[in-house]
Amino acid sequence: MDSKQFREAAISSIDDIVKYYDTIEDRRVVSNVEPGYLRKILPEEAPQTGEAWADIQKDLEAKIVPGLTHWQSPNFLAWFPSSSSFPAMLGEMYSTAFTGAAFNWICSPAVTELETIVMDWLAKAFALPPCYLSTGPTNGGGVIHGTASEAIATVLVAARDKYLREATAHLTGGNEEEEEAREDAWAERRGRLVALGSAATHSATKKAAQIAGVRFRAVPVHAADGYRMTGAELRRVILELRARGLEPFYLTATLGTTDTCAVDDMEGIASVLAELSPPGGPDGEVWVHVDAAYAGAALICPEYQHLAEAFDKFHSYNTNLHKWLLVNFDCSAVWVRDRRHLTEALSVSLAILRNPHTDSGLVTDYRDWQIPFGRRFRSLKVWFVLRAYGVDGLRAHVRKHIKHAEVFAGLLKTRPDLFEIVTGPRFALTVFKLAGDGKEGSTVEEQNALTKTMYDAVVEDGRIFLSSTVVGGVFAIRHNPATPFVEEHHVRKHFEILVEVAEKVLFKA
Amino acid sequence: MDSKQFREAAISSIDDIVKYYDTIEDRRVVSNVEPGYLRKILPEEAPQTGEAWADIQKDLEAKIVPGLTHWQSPNFLAWFPSSSSFPAMLGEMYSTAFTGAAFNWICSPAVTELETIVMDWLAKAFALPPCYLSTGPTNGGGVIHGTASEAIATVLVAARDKYLREATAHLTGGNEEEEEAREDAWAERRGRLVALGSAATHSATKKAAQIAGVRFRAVPVHAADGYRMTGAELRRVILELRARGLEPFYLTATLGTTDTCAVDDMEGIASVLAELSPPGGPDGEVWVHVDAAYAGAALICPEYQHLAEAFDKFHSYNTNLHKWLLVNFDCSAVWVRDRRHLTEALSVSLAILRNPHTDSGLVTDYRDWQIPFGRRFRSLKVWFVLRAYGVDGLRAHVRKHIKHAEVFAGLLKTRPDLFEIVTGPRFALTVFKLAGDGKEGSTVEEQNALTKTMYDAVVEDGRIFLSSTVVGGVFAIRHNPATPFVEEHHVRKHFEILVEVAEKVLFKA
Repeated sequence: MDSKQFREAAISSIDDIVKYYDTIEDRRVVSNVEPGYLRKILPEEAPQTGEAWADIQKDLEAKIVPGLTHWQSPNFLAWFPSSSSFPAMLGEMYSTAFTGAAFNWICSPAVTELETIVMDWLAKAFALPPCYLSTGPTNGGGVIHGTASEAIATVLVAARDKYLREATAHLTGGNEEEEEAREDAWAERRGRLVALGSAATHSATKKAAQIAGVRFRAVPVHAADGYRMTGAELRRVILELRARGLEPFYLTATLGTTDTCAVDDMEGIASVLAELSPPGGPDGEVWVHVDAAYAGAALICPEYQHLAEAFDKFHSYNTNLHKWLLVNFDCSAVWVRDRRHLTEALSVSLAILRNPHTDSGLVTDYRDWQIPFGRRFRSLKVWFVLRAYGVDGLRAHVRKHIKHAEVFAGLLKTRPDLFEIVTGPRFALTVFKLAGDGKEGSTVEEQNALTKTMYDAVVEDGRIFLSSTVVGGVFAIRHNPATPFVEEHHVRKHFEILVEVAEKVLFKA
Repeated sequence: MDSKQFREAAISSIDDIVKYYDTIEDRRVVSNVEPGYLRKILPEEAPQTGEAWADIQKDLEAKIVPGLTHWQSPNFLAWFPSSSSFPAMLGEMYSTAFTGAAFNWICSPAVTELETIVMDWLAKAFALPPCYLSTGPTNGGGVIHGTASEAIATVLVAARDKYLREATAHLTGGNEEEEEAREDAWAERRGRLVALGSAATHSATKKAAQIAGVRFRAVPVHAADGYRMTGAELRRVILELRARGLEPFYLTATLGTTDTCAVDDMEGIASVLAELSPPGGPDGEVWVHVDAAYAGAALICPEYQHLAEAFDKFHSYNTNLHKWLLVNFDCSAVWVRDRRHLTEALSVSLAILRNPHTDSGLVTDYRDWQIPFGRRFRSLKVWFVLRAYGVDGLRAHVRKHIKHAEVFAGLLKTRPDLFEIVTGPRFALTVFKLAGDGKEGSTVEEQNALTKTMYDAVVEDGRIFLSSTVVGGVFAIRHNPATPFVEEHHVRKHFEILVEVAEKVLFKA
């Protein structure tokens, strides 16, 4: 394929993509292929000789598209959204064309520099404390990772090594024997370390602890607190662990939990840790990372920015721009208050990478801020989105969804015979269940079974796609209308479908 | 931006990209902006209101492009290539349009299924042993990661947990107390674990060990062995470590080291490990991962496939398709002989993710094969490339570069007064130095200084871009003409430039 053929193929692909977006609402939102469908219709081996683009493109429509779940459909309400926008798509087009591994500054200075700049722009737009700015007072700064799970694994490793470094500061290393003594001390101490997160935080923290080779313990959450982690529960868990000789060194505080969009008590957490693990104290400092993967997008609006007030006492923060801020997957924005903790944990150097710029200390080598070595030019799509929408446009986008969820919750309340809200709406997420089974004194198990029957019927029906969860023992359904093209009339239609199916389940039984 | 405006903007971007590729040879290959150039010309904050696409696109050309290093230029010879092709770009366009987090099968069945299929196609095309096929005898299979460093970190974590699980098989867990006893045993044992790689392997293994919280030791390599790791040196290091109470559990064997494209002695490694750490033996099995990030692409050609013969004794393997196989960054193909080792180390489950398909065991949830939770639809670009080029097309691509490097090495040999080959050509990489400084009995340091002076002059000159390295104490220059558009006349031109600069450095002094 030469550049002329590429131009033709690309324009035909653009036409295809425009058509896909223009008609996305008419497609069944969730794919209904059977597991293994694709192997049956593709060859056993790669073709020996090249094929024409037209044939490949035809197969894409015929064989791949039926196996897609349409995340940009206004009827996609499951998990959290993974948003898409035309400016971000253009960003990806250019980024792909300019492709390179971009592991250090000279690999393409613009890749590093634009990333630092848009991360500062975003920190300001979210009203994060100045310690997260690259130009701030604490050597902070931002970096773009792929996903929140990478962000959490990365900062957890940095937190682990910061804790161990501080705990063994008296072992200075130097010669080989001293280095080994330090290595032994780290190994012994590492075995006692515990990473914490609330019972409602995303599994990413537990997985990060598995990766880093440390223990994980969940801080319980309670319905009475709206499923948010409180300072009191954190205090209890830390003291219990210490009493058993273990050392909590890291905490994920969540702004918008996956199940219910609960926000942990940030002030309470900060105050407990100021008491139990002050910097330089005898027990070591607990690193606090705030995971705001989805709900952090709301900080673009001044009415939510008070949520960030306590963050100047914490160590790192992440928001996935690909969830709710119109940047196509993947794009997790991560900030740290002191970048040296990342580079001290993750830097390794090879002669082949050395160049005058790296040695000058003037440039950022982002490979030392992350797990992967090479990097994509992700800041380009962020820059395009920030410029094409402006801060005002992004605020309008978030507020639109918040309003949709309020409309939806209002509708649920008009049918107390059918539905009961479990939590929300919070950040455009409403969690609800069937109101009962019409019989007095039905058990939670019976009610759960009924809501599950209804949920399965909705998925089977295929007009809308939601996810389910279990909150405080209650099986519940999540409605999260935060995809870019969803409008109020869609939300009203979602409600009608839910009523239709609920009535069938409740009154047919 | 609505879909009509997007169509216009996208076509104008395609035209821009076509022009970029058609004229890439005329651009200075390595950017010569000063550190901090971009902050000076961009605003301090994101715009408050949205801007027109035409303005954004204008700034792209004026402000970003000067800060790019052009990895697709035929004059880019540094590090390893990061290849690009038009079919892969089309794959990224569609993947971006179909965007979603794709963390499990139902998120988009085609994303999971196409990945399994193209990874099997590739395993066959590379003639990997059948244990790496998803349909093979050992529950193997392939997955696409972003980079080799992620691949190595992931398999190292799986190897660590497999080793610990086997070492503590008598602790069955069950109740909370027994679980904690197992956790304690793991913590204690983990502190003794050592990951190995040759002194010439990529820093990714050391970094992976840092991430996983285990020790790292390098197995020395020697000029006499062509800088490849031998079974004898591996044997010596393992026995030394064991004598000191440490437990080697993992080894990166390298097929194509970064500095010189050396290939470790795979048969020798297999034979030493069969002796020292047989599966089920008293000392635990050492997991062997083969990192073939760059050179593995050559296995597409039958004349290189004998290199994979020993791999049926190993545990995992990776090749970056984005380096030398025309798939745009990022795309690291990773295979394991038993996928359960990945999922046992990395799986965590959330109620919100449960669906009938996940529970059925019929589908693959690739999130448990990797560190990130969400995933891009990377297999699409791989499918497009395999179909558009065919296996024959990819073979021709690799052979073209191998031949270019032979031509280049031949040219170096015509000027023994100027150049001396240090290693190669191996897999299209030639490592060379200046032949001397014209004075009898000059020291290695003097010669290194001279080659470095010449190297700096070549970079400064800007017509070609190479990287330098230090091999066995010798400062050397790497020439790796493996970008897609490089042709023999370019290689001859590279040589002319090198002669010109070398003569200046050698005879002007």
